[in-house]
Amino acid sequence: MQTVYSLRHHRHHARAELIDGTMRPPHERPERAELVLRAVEAAALGPVVPPTEHGLGPLARVHDERFLAFLAEAWGEWIAEHGTETDALGLAWPTRRFTQREPHAIDGRLSYFSFDAGSPIMAGTAEAVFASADVALTGADRLLAGDPHAFALCRPPGHHAGRDLYGGYCFVNNAAAAAQALRDGGLERVAVVDVDYHHGNGTQDVFWDRGDVLVTSLHGDPRQEYPYFAGYADERGAGAGEDANVNFPLPWGTGATRWFEALDQALARVRAFTPEAVVVSLGVDTFRHDPISRFELDAGDYPVLGARLADLDVPTLVVLEGGYAVEALGTNVAGVLRGLVGAESPPRQPE
Amino acid sequence: MQTVYSLRHHRHHARAELIDGTMRPPHERPERAELVLRAVEAAALGPVVPPTEHGLGPLARVHDERFLAFLAEAWGEWIAEHGTETDALGLAWPTRRFTQREPHAIDGRLSYFSFDAGSPIMAGTAEAVFASADVALTGADRLLAGDPHAFALCRPPGHHAGRDLYGGYCFVNNAAAAAQALRDGGLERVAVVDVDYHHGNGTQDVFWDRGDVLVTSLHGDPRQEYPYFAGYADERGAGAGEDANVNFPLPWGTGATRWFEALDQALARVRAFTPEAVVVSLGVDTFRHDPISRFELDAGDYPVLGARLADLDVPTLVVLEGGYAVEALGTNVAGVLRGLVGAESPPRQPE
Repeated sequence: MQTVYSLRHHRHHARAELIDGTMRPPHERPERAELVLRAVEAAALGPVVPPTEHGLGPLARVHDERFLAFLAEAWGEWIAEHGTETDALGLAWPTRRFTQREPHAIDGRLSYFSFDAGSPIMAGTAEAVFASADVALTGADRLLAGDPHAFALCRPPGHHAGRDLYGGYCFVNNAAAAAQALRDGGLERVAVVDVDYHHGNGTQDVFWDRGDVLVTSLHGDPRQEYPYFAGYADERGAGAGEDANVNFPLPWGTGATRWFEALDQALARVRAFTPEAVVVSLGVDTFRHDPISRFELDAGDYPVLGARLADLDVPTLVVLEGGYAVEALGTNVAGVLRGLVGAESPPRQPE
Repeated sequence: MQTVYSLRHHRHHARAELIDGTMRPPHERPERAELVLRAVEAAALGPVVPPTEHGLGPLARVHDERFLAFLAEAWGEWIAEHGTETDALGLAWPTRRFTQREPHAIDGRLSYFSFDAGSPIMAGTAEAVFASADVALTGADRLLAGDPHAFALCRPPGHHAGRDLYGGYCFVNNAAAAAQALRDGGLERVAVVDVDYHHGNGTQDVFWDRGDVLVTSLHGDPRQEYPYFAGYADERGAGAGEDANVNFPLPWGTGATRWFEALDQALARVRAFTPEAVVVSLGVDTFRHDPISRFELDAGDYPVLGARLADLDVPTLVVLEGGYAVEALGTNVAGVLRGLVGAESPPRQPE
């Protein structure tokens, strides 16, 4: 199995995010990807390769072009207005009954295209974000070339990014872009399995009215958990996409038994859909020691998850999303991948 | 002219607000009201009286009851979850295509009922907010009792607060509650004239589909200015309220000539509406030295504004909204009031 990785994620390193009412060092930081890389190398699962450049074309298949232009322009406009002392954040959001028109001023544009205050944009964000998408798209290429598995070691993550909205540390939806690339590469049906602790609201948004990409997500109940305003079980898609969006909201404290029950239900939906490829949005913030999440999975559960995915017997691209318990992050990601490729024994721990 | 004032605004004193990508000491702070009070006293315009308590009943006429309950409960729920170290702020907002359902968790509720990250809630916020509304309602009582003028020295301000949304330092819409109280007191038609630098999106929201309260607002063009997603000229109300909402968005750099042209247009609309009372949402952040605004009015323009309002010859309640150039804040507010009551000569400067 190839792992695709780009060092350009280092260009995105936020100074602070708004959390619990104050600006704190961000949970989503460059070390995350390094830890995963080291664990994947230690597990000897296959070569680590750089992405190939795909340009903005494949991203425009899942995002609005105005939105992609904004991501490229935002930092330059921000520093023209505010200088370089702080990262760029929006400050007011068009919720109920506000008009949905893109303002001219950069503060307004940041607000228009975002849905939270936890996803700062800085000098290197656009470069890192487009490189992260290239990582996912290169992973999709591996499947189109016939590989049974690939791992896109993406950073920043992507599953919260919708058609024209960023948030939740996500700017471009890597998994959605990969799923679309698989469709555009000739596959008829693609399924997304999102096992990140948080609902994959962006992926749901992108494929909401489409029947060719099944989107399933297991996640913290939105009544309790970020992103709060998506992820309910009755959100089932619309039009041609009706019943092609399947949410499994789960309460705080969910442990392995209940979580795997929901996973099995999700995978039954995937099987019934008979996809030609599966894209897994892999967050390991379901881990019991994750600092911002409240599920209770253990390290031993991750290889089991990988094995369940392998049982689908469908070409599978794993795309990295969240996970913030940095010590165990790499181990748990590698655990899923070992389970997926059928590696028998646990790897040596990275030293 | 009576000025209504309550010391309870001191209970709301935010530690920080999110502005320009970082948490900074808030522009909206207790000294604002003190400066205005001193200038009003120095101008010898009449007695300063405390508000009478009106309870939540009059507020439920313009806000959803769930929203008012939330304001009263938010701080207790916040400290149960996060302790008292930081003020309470939301972190993700239900913008385009998100579901509009109130979550259970406090972080989700803060997000659901707010539209920005610049309006912190702390221990005394609810007390201060409801006292500020009482100030406005007591001012409305003065008009119903036959006074030609009254000044509600409100803090926190209110004109950004919608039916079930807070933001922009505003939690309860004092001006809207006062306008509604005038209606409920027997007046047939009430006009709101909002001259704060920022669009009075909350007042627009409250009276959007009503023809009995005319809402006019002069403000920074939303393409350039907060709140960005309301205040366009084509937002004219709906249903029975069609054409009873009149916006005058003005560009950065607007000076007195252009501003008074727009004011005269707004006042012509007010005259044609033949209101039995006028509520003025008075922000003096149109002042050229205001730290967060970009209009170019001078101190001498404020008595002129007051005189134009007096020319309407309709009972008038002035409700304090924004204004952040603290040195000149009181002088400019008193200038409007002097113009309104026809005081001939400038007052002694407060020492």
